[in-house]
Amino acid sequence: MAADAIRTPPGLAGVVVASTALGGIRGHEGFFHYRQYSAPDLAETRTLEEVWHLLHQGSLPTELELAEFRHRIGGLRLLPDDLIDLIGNVARVGEDILALSWVRTAVSLVAQHMGLTPWLGQTREALEEQATRLAAVMPTIVAAGWRARNGLAPVPPNPRLRIAEDFLRMLRGTTPDARSARALEQYLILTIDHGFNASTFTSRIVASTGADLGAGLTAGTGALSGPLHGGAPVHCLRMLRSIGTPERADSWIRESLARGDLIPGFGHRVYRTEDPRSTMLRGVAEGFDDPLVDLAVRVEKTILEALHAHRPDHELRTNVEYYAGVVLHLAGVPEELFPACFAVSRSIGWTAHMLEQMEGNRIIRPDSDYVGPQASGSFLI
Amino acid sequence: MAADAIRTPPGLAGVVVASTALGGIRGHEGFFHYRQYSAPDLAETRTLEEVWHLLHQGSLPTELELAEFRHRIGGLRLLPDDLIDLIGNVARVGEDILALSWVRTAVSLVAQHMGLTPWLGQTREALEEQATRLAAVMPTIVAAGWRARNGLAPVPPNPRLRIAEDFLRMLRGTTPDARSARALEQYLILTIDHGFNASTFTSRIVASTGADLGAGLTAGTGALSGPLHGGAPVHCLRMLRSIGTPERADSWIRESLARGDLIPGFGHRVYRTEDPRSTMLRGVAEGFDDPLVDLAVRVEKTILEALHAHRPDHELRTNVEYYAGVVLHLAGVPEELFPACFAVSRSIGWTAHMLEQMEGNRIIRPDSDYVGPQASGSFLI
Repeated sequence: MAADAIRTPPGLAGVVVASTALGGIRGHEGFFHYRQYSAPDLAETRTLEEVWHLLHQGSLPTELELAEFRHRIGGLRLLPDDLIDLIGNVARVGEDILALSWVRTAVSLVAQHMGLTPWLGQTREALEEQATRLAAVMPTIVAAGWRARNGLAPVPPNPRLRIAEDFLRMLRGTTPDARSARALEQYLILTIDHGFNASTFTSRIVASTGADLGAGLTAGTGALSGPLHGGAPVHCLRMLRSIGTPERADSWIRESLARGDLIPGFGHRVYRTEDPRSTMLRGVAEGFDDPLVDLAVRVEKTILEALHAHRPDHELRTNVEYYAGVVLHLAGVPEELFPACFAVSRSIGWTAHMLEQMEGNRIIRPDSDYVGPQASGSFLI
Repeated sequence: MAADAIRTPPGLAGVVVASTALGGIRGHEGFFHYRQYSAPDLAETRTLEEVWHLLHQGSLPTELELAEFRHRIGGLRLLPDDLIDLIGNVARVGEDILALSWVRTAVSLVAQHMGLTPWLGQTREALEEQATRLAAVMPTIVAAGWRARNGLAPVPPNPRLRIAEDFLRMLRGTTPDARSARALEQYLILTIDHGFNASTFTSRIVASTGADLGAGLTAGTGALSGPLHGGAPVHCLRMLRSIGTPERADSWIRESLARGDLIPGFGHRVYRTEDPRSTMLRGVAEGFDDPLVDLAVRVEKTILEALHAHRPDHELRTNVEYYAGVVLHLAGVPEELFPACFAVSRSIGWTAHMLEQMEGNRIIRPDSDYVGPQASGSFLI
C-alpha cells in the first residue's frame, strides 16, 4: 500500500465513490428521488413505463413518447421459443427456493443469446437499445422460468399490456385484477433504484471493465440474491405468519430480542427515518381488504416499541422489506419470486447506472492493505 | 450526500477498501506475492495445486497434504453427464468469440446445480468445501463448453493428472507434452490473484451481501470479460500477427500512435516497473523454440522505445497480457479461450477472497453524489 493511500471505513460506509444524475437518497429527510422527482410521488401518480423513460431518457415522456416507448418495450418482451425452452431447462436445475440463482443464470443466457459484446467502441444508441432489451425481457425470463420449474407451459407476453399486469399474467396464466396489477407496479416503481446499493455498485464496476451489459446485469442479480441486500421480504412475510395474531407479537419480539435474533424488515444503513418506501407500501397494502394487512400494521407497531425499549439509543425503523413482502403476496406473486421481482425492477436501475458509468469511464480498481506475514522480495522456495 | 462524506478519486484509484492476508502488490518494486511468498517464485518452483493450497489454507502443503488435496480436487473435476450436456447447450448459444459470456452462464448454472445457498449461517467448513468445488470444476466447464461449441464430444477429466495437464487434455482430447502443460500451469499460477482488481473486488462485494459463492464467481467472471480487465491477451497475439515481422514493428507502432490507438499489452495502473508477470512469462515463452517468441521479444523492444519517445513523461511498460497471449498460444490453448483460462486461475483467487470477506463481513455499500437538477422534497407530478 502506498503511503499516500486513502483509507476508508468498513463496507465503504459514507464513502462517495461516484457522481450520478440518476437519483439519490437523503437519509436524514427520509427522501429519495429519481432524477429530480420524488420517487414515492412517481409511484403514486405514474406508470412504470413513464418512470423507466424518466430514468433512462432524463425526462418524463410526452403522450406520444410514452405510446412509442410502451409499444417498443412490449414487443421486446417476446423471446424465441427455443430460448424459452432453454430458460426452462436452466430454471429447473437445483432446488434454490428463493429463485435468484436460476434467474441469474437465465439472465446471463439471454444476454448471450442477444450476442452482447463488450461496450467499448459501440455507439451510445446501440448500448441504450441493449439496455432496454435486457430490462424489458426480465418479466418474461422470470415468468417462463418459474412456470417451467412448476411444470407449467410458458404464457407468451401480451405486448399491449403494461409491464406489471403482463408480468402477473405471464406468471399466473390469467389476467390479474387492476388493484393487484397496480400494487405490483407501485412496488416495482419504488424499487427501481436506490443510490449506490451493493448490486448497483457491482453492476457499475463490471461495466467499468468494458464488459457487456449482460455481465453487469448478471452480476447485479447475483449481488441482489444476498440476504443482506435483496433477500428479506419473504422472511418478513414468514415472520408475520409465524407470529399469527397481533396479540402474540409482543411475546414473539421479546423472545427474539432475548435470543439476539435479527428482526427482518427493520433498519437501513442510510435512513435515519422511516424508509419512505415502507411508508408508501404500507398504504398500498392498506388498499387490500385482507387480515394480513391489519396483522402487519399491528405487529409493526409492537415491534417498533419493543426495539425502542430494547435499545433507545439505536433507532431502528421499518425498511422497504417489511411491507414489500405483504404487497407482493397480496398482488399474487409467489413467495419464492419476491427477490426475482426486485430484480425485475432493479434491472431498469442497473442498466441506467451502467450506461451512466460508460460516460467518462475509468475502471474501478481500488487498493487493499496487506496484513499477513511480511513478504520478502524474492527467495526461491 | 452527507457533509462528512469521504470523497474518492475516479475509479477508486489508490483507495484502500479492505485489508487482506491473501497477498499484495508493491507497484514501485515490481513485486507481487501470495501470502508471504513471491508469486513468480511460486510459479518457478511449485505446482498450481500447491499454490492453491497456500492461498486457501495459509501454508504450502506437506507431501501428504498435497497428495490428499490433489486427490480431492481431481475428483471434484467430474460433473454428471446431464449437467455436461446442459453446459454444452448453454455454451452453444450466441456467437461470442471471446468465450466468457457462455463461461459466465455455465459457471452460474453449475453453482445452481450444486445447490449453493447464501453463505450467511453456514459453517466455515461447508463454505470452504463449496469454494474448492467451484474452483475445481472450472477447467471441466471451459473444456466441455468449448468442445460442445465446436461440435466435439466432451472428454472426461482424469482426476490423477495435475490441473493444467488435465485441462489441456480435456480441451484437445490428447495428452499434452510436458512443456505445454507446465507453461500453462505457470501462467495459471501467475494469474491466480492480484490485489483488488475489478473482478476480485466485484466478487467480494457480491459475497458481502450474503449471496452464495456461485453468485460471486459468476459476477467475477463477468467483470473479467471486460477488455480493460481480462480481455486483452488475444489482442496482443493478433497485434503480433498483424505486425508479422520484427522489421515492420517500427512503422506499425508509429502509425498506431499517430492515430491515437491504445497499444494492447502495455501499461498497468499499479506497476511503475515492468509487470513481474510479464518478465516471467517472457521466460516461459522463450522455453519454446518458436519464431513467434522471437517476434514478440523484438516487437516488444521496438514498442517500448516508441512509447518512450512518444511520451517520455508517461512510462508505459509491458504488462501481463503481452506474453500471456504468446504463452497460451504456444501451450496449445485456442485463442477464444484466453479469457476463460484467466477465469480458471482467477477463480481460485476469487473464492479465497470471498471466504476472507465472510470473516467479519460488512456489506459493501458506498454512497454517491447526486449532481442532477435539484430534487424537491415532495410535489405530486
